[in-house]
Amino acid sequence: MRYAPPIARLLEELERLPGIGPKSAQRLAYYILRADTGDATRLADAITEVKRTIHFCPQCFNFAEGDLCEVCADVERDTTALCVVEEPRDLVAIERTNEFRGLYHVLQGAISPIDGIGPDQLRIRELLVRLADESVTEVVVATNPNVEGETTALYISRLVKPLGIRVTRIASGLPVGGDLEYADEVTLGRALEARREM
Amino acid sequence: MRYAPPIARLLEELERLPGIGPKSAQRLAYYILRADTGDATRLADAITEVKRTIHFCPQCFNFAEGDLCEVCADVERDTTALCVVEEPRDLVAIERTNEFRGLYHVLQGAISPIDGIGPDQLRIRELLVRLADESVTEVVVATNPNVEGETTALYISRLVKPLGIRVTRIASGLPVGGDLEYADEVTLGRALEARREM
Repeated sequence: MRYAPPIARLLEELERLPGIGPKSAQRLAYYILRADTGDATRLADAITEVKRTIHFCPQCFNFAEGDLCEVCADVERDTTALCVVEEPRDLVAIERTNEFRGLYHVLQGAISPIDGIGPDQLRIRELLVRLADESVTEVVVATNPNVEGETTALYISRLVKPLGIRVTRIASGLPVGGDLEYADEVTLGRALEARREM
Repeated sequence: MRYAPPIARLLEELERLPGIGPKSAQRLAYYILRADTGDATRLADAITEVKRTIHFCPQCFNFAEGDLCEVCADVERDTTALCVVEEPRDLVAIERTNEFRGLYHVLQGAISPIDGIGPDQLRIRELLVRLADESVTEVVVATNPNVEGETTALYISRLVKPLGIRVTRIASGLPVGGDLEYADEVTLGRALEARREM
């Protein structure tokens, strides 16, 4: 005996989602099966709606509902600073700090030869086009502080510096509120290396 | 800056799902945003479809696509044995063993006073109605071997035995392929207690 075909189909679709294995898919399917039809419909509609209304911003490649994304459409932003991030979620993380008032450029990934992702799979060409056209004086590279992110940062730095534009990298160091004792050596080494006068 | 409203709405709906926190919801939302529209539509449709087509079997309370569920609709099944389980997934697990050819009764939960679930919240009344009407001679209680499942098993046993129907309980013991050394004491104790002649 198998699940009824509509249940089997739902399980199959749920298992395609990242981080969802057969057990999680079953838990989610059971939840959906027992939920109010209204709740389930809202979930299905939210999925359909997001695909219908959201596209990539043609300027920075963030997710956008209008022509441009919310940041690019905001005329109050500082157009001389451009922050390069891997994914839209990184942009959201930086916006939450309220520390950056410039524009963004979303690479949609990081260089990772092992995953077959080279510069051509990222939005690096589009970054160079923007830098040629716009009034940018500083590129803040905020890719992740891991191997792929650092490789990508280095690659971008080598391309952008010759254009006479300042390239900066977000700092690595101890998390605020963190504990020296529990920091890994690499992070602690970086924190020492990047020490500043008080 | 917040997410565009359709993205925020999707995140909110995803976070309602069991075991999905804000981070998982974000990962799922990003996957959906980057997926083919076809893939996303299939997921949304599978959710809508399952709500439209699946209901509870009026006889055993398993999920059903037709009038009765697949098991109840199967005239080849042995109508003298009834296996009582907590959830439809338990029914599927038992069906996979090919060891049971009778019918089922899905309680839709187990007695758990701490969660406010008493006998009245389960399909126990419906079980008794079935036992009065049908030709059942044995009730196999296959609730989970945990506190709630054992409590439920005991409760059902006390109700059913006076009807002159045999009540059996699935065995607890060492998992097949398991290792004595790693078995917990309670399981090992049960395995000893339930030892059989060879």
